[in-house]
Amino acid sequence: MNKYGRNRVVIENVYPEIDCGQYPIKRVVGETVVVEADVFGDGHDSVSASLLYKKAGDRKWNESPMEFIKNDRRRGEFIVEELSDYVYCIEGWIDHFKTWLGDIKKKYDAGQDISVDLLIGAKEVELAMNKAKGGDRKKLQEYYEIVSNTEDPDAAVALANEPEFVNLVYRYPDRSLSSRYAKELAVQVDRKKALFSSWYERFPRSCAPETGKHGTFKDLEALLPEISRMGFDVLYLPPIHPIGKINRKGKNNSVVCEPGDPGSPWAIGSDEGGHKSIHPELGSMDDFLSLVKKTQEHGLEIALDLAYQCTPDHPYVKEHPEWFKNRPDGSIQYAENPPKKYQDIYPLNFETEQWKELWEELKSIVEFWIDKGVKIFRVDNPHTKTFAFWEWMIGDMRDKYPEAIFLSEAFTRPKVMYKLAKIGFNQSYTYFTWRNTKQEFIDYLTELTKSEVREYFRPNFWPNTPDILPQHLQFDGRQEFMKRLVLAATLSSNYGIYGPAFELCIQEAVPGKEEYYYSEKYEIKHWDWDAPGNLKDFITRINKIRKDNPALQFTNNLDFCEIENDLMLSYVKTTNGLSNIILVVVNMDPHHTQSGFVQMPLEKLGIDPDQPFMVHDLIGDSKYIWKGETNYVELNPHIVPAHIFRVHGRLKKETDFDYFM
Amino acid sequence: MNKYGRNRVVIENVYPEIDCGQYPIKRVVGETVVVEADVFGDGHDSVSASLLYKKAGDRKWNESPMEFIKNDRRRGEFIVEELSDYVYCIEGWIDHFKTWLGDIKKKYDAGQDISVDLLIGAKEVELAMNKAKGGDRKKLQEYYEIVSNTEDPDAAVALANEPEFVNLVYRYPDRSLSSRYAKELAVQVDRKKALFSSWYERFPRSCAPETGKHGTFKDLEALLPEISRMGFDVLYLPPIHPIGKINRKGKNNSVVCEPGDPGSPWAIGSDEGGHKSIHPELGSMDDFLSLVKKTQEHGLEIALDLAYQCTPDHPYVKEHPEWFKNRPDGSIQYAENPPKKYQDIYPLNFETEQWKELWEELKSIVEFWIDKGVKIFRVDNPHTKTFAFWEWMIGDMRDKYPEAIFLSEAFTRPKVMYKLAKIGFNQSYTYFTWRNTKQEFIDYLTELTKSEVREYFRPNFWPNTPDILPQHLQFDGRQEFMKRLVLAATLSSNYGIYGPAFELCIQEAVPGKEEYYYSEKYEIKHWDWDAPGNLKDFITRINKIRKDNPALQFTNNLDFCEIENDLMLSYVKTTNGLSNIILVVVNMDPHHTQSGFVQMPLEKLGIDPDQPFMVHDLIGDSKYIWKGETNYVELNPHIVPAHIFRVHGRLKKETDFDYFM
Repeated sequence: MNKYGRNRVVIENVYPEIDCGQYPIKRVVGETVVVEADVFGDGHDSVSASLLYKKAGDRKWNESPMEFIKNDRRRGEFIVEELSDYVYCIEGWIDHFKTWLGDIKKKYDAGQDISVDLLIGAKEVELAMNKAKGGDRKKLQEYYEIVSNTEDPDAAVALANEPEFVNLVYRYPDRSLSSRYAKELAVQVDRKKALFSSWYERFPRSCAPETGKHGTFKDLEALLPEISRMGFDVLYLPPIHPIGKINRKGKNNSVVCEPGDPGSPWAIGSDEGGHKSIHPELGSMDDFLSLVKKTQEHGLEIALDLAYQCTPDHPYVKEHPEWFKNRPDGSIQYAENPPKKYQDIYPLNFETEQWKELWEELKSIVEFWIDKGVKIFRVDNPHTKTFAFWEWMIGDMRDKYPEAIFLSEAFTRPKVMYKLAKIGFNQSYTYFTWRNTKQEFIDYLTELTKSEVREYFRPNFWPNTPDILPQHLQFDGRQEFMKRLVLAATLSSNYGIYGPAFELCIQEAVPGKEEYYYSEKYEIKHWDWDAPGNLKDFITRINKIRKDNPALQFTNNLDFCEIENDLMLSYVKTTNGLSNIILVVVNMDPHHTQSGFVQMPLEKLGIDPDQPFMVHDLIGDSKYIWKGETNYVELNPHIVPAHIFRVHGRLKKETDFDYFM
Repeated sequence: MNKYGRNRVVIENVYPEIDCGQYPIKRVVGETVVVEADVFGDGHDSVSASLLYKKAGDRKWNESPMEFIKNDRRRGEFIVEELSDYVYCIEGWIDHFKTWLGDIKKKYDAGQDISVDLLIGAKEVELAMNKAKGGDRKKLQEYYEIVSNTEDPDAAVALANEPEFVNLVYRYPDRSLSSRYAKELAVQVDRKKALFSSWYERFPRSCAPETGKHGTFKDLEALLPEISRMGFDVLYLPPIHPIGKINRKGKNNSVVCEPGDPGSPWAIGSDEGGHKSIHPELGSMDDFLSLVKKTQEHGLEIALDLAYQCTPDHPYVKEHPEWFKNRPDGSIQYAENPPKKYQDIYPLNFETEQWKELWEELKSIVEFWIDKGVKIFRVDNPHTKTFAFWEWMIGDMRDKYPEAIFLSEAFTRPKVMYKLAKIGFNQSYTYFTWRNTKQEFIDYLTELTKSEVREYFRPNFWPNTPDILPQHLQFDGRQEFMKRLVLAATLSSNYGIYGPAFELCIQEAVPGKEEYYYSEKYEIKHWDWDAPGNLKDFITRINKIRKDNPALQFTNNLDFCEIENDLMLSYVKTTNGLSNIILVVVNMDPHHTQSGFVQMPLEKLGIDPDQPFMVHDLIGDSKYIWKGETNYVELNPHIVPAHIFRVHGRLKKETDFDYFM
């Protein structure tokens, strides 16, 4: 027997609740949290329930009522209005007043003597009255007189039908025996950019205007107006630190390094410094600070690469050999994937007994760059460092800098990717890069946006990266780049490209592999950014469509539409209030025209199936009048492989033709 | 940072785990518990995992290895061997020795210098050696010499391929940095009858041999040989306590009680006593003790009805008015479902401030009857009493009397029924009584046997009860009773009938309702048990088939078979080792012959699709030779509406025709 023996209400099967409440769900400021639970009691009495919520650390709960859905399930919701973590909980109670309200009418209608029942109801009103003050108390006193007057049951029953009466009593519910859900569940609230961001990756060292020269931060500054014009808001730089000289890799990942080969930026550390230093050829710290500032002036933010690994000549190797794995011959263990050896990289050993010092140092790297104005980190291979470290480090950073954003670059097994998201990463790379059939997209996006994963894993879709030039981009031409861009930018509210390789439609791969030939990872490039056929204007258009249409600034609002052609993919996205409705249609065949009849969920979209409505293709700027659920679409990939329609539902006034504008 | 910072392995998504481990799963003695979990670490090192289990209260864990399935999922199992609750947990660790084993071979095969790697391996062997004693230690010392001999890498690699070497090192794994799942999960272990039982419900007061007389326990004793012959093992009696006299109900639930009307046994309590007393006309306490003893001698057990409610003249009403709800006019609240009133019943008020005393008294009723030799309770309407009470009461009773079995008679909403099972009820009534189409059975049984529900909810299927004469039994004739019996007795390992109304195929209902006309609940019956057309021998046959065939003694081993006729239902049940395979085919149409081709999952059944096999109909005793997955069946409901085949797969020796026997 515990003290809750009289509490008759059960609360269970709460959604969302990640791993029994071990991990928070994620939202950005302004988003809604919808909570469902099974709430029920024994017997036949009425049950009421409230959703409780507050900012983490606040004492007082806010409440919103939970509405009955069916089968003992209830639903409530609240909005996270501030950049603060929130918690929520549920309370349920046997609602004797509600039970009485229902019963008294049935008995009265059956012509029974209800005088004792009225006295029972009066007691409920009295309970409320005793809690109320001022005008409410006075009003409840009047109600009490009416309900307790057994001489006039008609008046009492009439009162029981008055919403004013009912609502006032409800304002002071008797919750003395209410049940509280045992766990308080957390919401990790991020700023809006965690959900809606457009990334552009660029190697600063390849930004020099003159061929043969090493690019600098200054050179990159000169490109900011154009990157900004294209509509990106995150400028992500591969590591900017000194590059190892020992066992440095040559062109095409060769173990032989020719004189002048710059090495891979991910081989971090040399006698010139480590993770808190800047590669001297890129510029000084002041140059970097200037870049950060200029980037902001262009409406962009810098994202740095956080790659926790060291070259043999990284200062840590000398200063902290205990942070690495030592081999019996006295050497330090290099990275390997037997029989392959990566002797230019020493992984950190998270099993070291000096793990606390190691963790503190790794965290201090993040704080160092946050102090320089960087708030976004693209984390390299987080799945090869321990989960416990990330949970601690990101948790601590979010406490201090709630605007910090960490993107997990874990191209690995699904459960590992999801785990990294649960423990705090704000965004994650995905399998999008390799998915390329209609069914693959439907399956994968359904997993991402309809399963519990949606609550904590925010996808960031990349058609290409310096590591990955997928087969379809190698073989299917410029129109495939357009198609992949539209898919990335409209399926996911976070997306990014590695440029200018993307907008220049670079297709040459290492034979038989999905890697760039003469990859920028191992050499300095000099791009002809305005080469004919480049996609800069197309990208600019797509990014503008994203900015103008709030429906594209969310990911989980995705619904696929039926279209009876395996080479045509279609989906809708809407804002909550349906003020913005986007319909995307993509021809998945990069070589031939495809067509089909797309079926739109008109009822869900609030569109009258008997009235014409207008769809406006935001890419080509053409407009069509459609009617009913099923409408014809046709796409020639050699012109443009996709429609992004804004859907304008019929306005209420018959005479109002604004929707044709 | 907590002390587990170096522990790299994650354990999550454990199955089974009911409501975050709040409730135990259920098993009977001898059953297997299969446990799955996602177990993985960061990076690319090998991971190993163990399933830990022990009797609750034991200090030392037993272990069994968890095998890798796919996608980071692992599975292990153990058997609950004793009538004791068990707990289980999971441990996982980075397995450096296993990683080394895989790597060393790859490097050796690639012709690399592995001398340093051998020293690394030798360190792993040394770690094992330092834990070992005696012969193992000596052997490991020898292995150590071989592995650490960098002069002879061939010998070391040859050793790495020796299972004897590998297994000996594995016997002393380095688990210093292993991760333990945070929760210990519980198994409620019951005796076998909780899973396999055949119930027969009978009103003792209707057992008198002479018409017009009130039956007694002695009269019931005389029927025990026949009930036993029919193959039942639980004899369930409606309440045996004094019946209320105030507001007693007459025939057909009439509010007018004629002189001589015996009242409903569920209206418990009068001046003759309450829940610990015996209705005087049934006999004395000694008579009851004699009945309990005789019942056991016939291989049966008595199940009593536990109906926690009182009549107005129950002793509790006078002695403990505080346990009831008091109305403002000083009267006690009777049961009602407005506008209906049940003035012969006073429900207990579980919101009373004296709830602790009430709970203790209610528990003492159970202990009183356990002390008299009763171990099985059919609990009336448990959903109208608080969940907290049941959890406490059943928990306490199971601690003291682990053989106690409580059957929940909650015909209510699904989540309430499942909750009662979670909090301890060993068996539960179900919706079987009303399910009657092929698809309804497939859907419902799939929910019961393939979802998480299977872990804690043990169905008990009843074709009829004194409260329910379903429509199909009213209209579809004797063959429908046979069909419902076969379905109940073969779909669920727990089943029961309310007799002799069932075996006499009583079909007369209150017009328009699913209730017996002239129900035995309100009057004494004198049954002609051997009336022509009775199903006693058919029932005897079915119960014998259940006893002879272990596959029918489980419920969750059910798999439906395809059969392309909506009026034919077919399913298989097997024992774990396939020594007993049962195929059931039921004609769902009570009026016409139906036929179809049943598809058997031969591979799962271990049957060679290219060899003939024999099916033996255990109802009609006919045998058929079948071959391949698809075989023809035909059933005339007017003869017998079902086949229960025992399937005899082809024996190994071509010349061995035992399977035709």
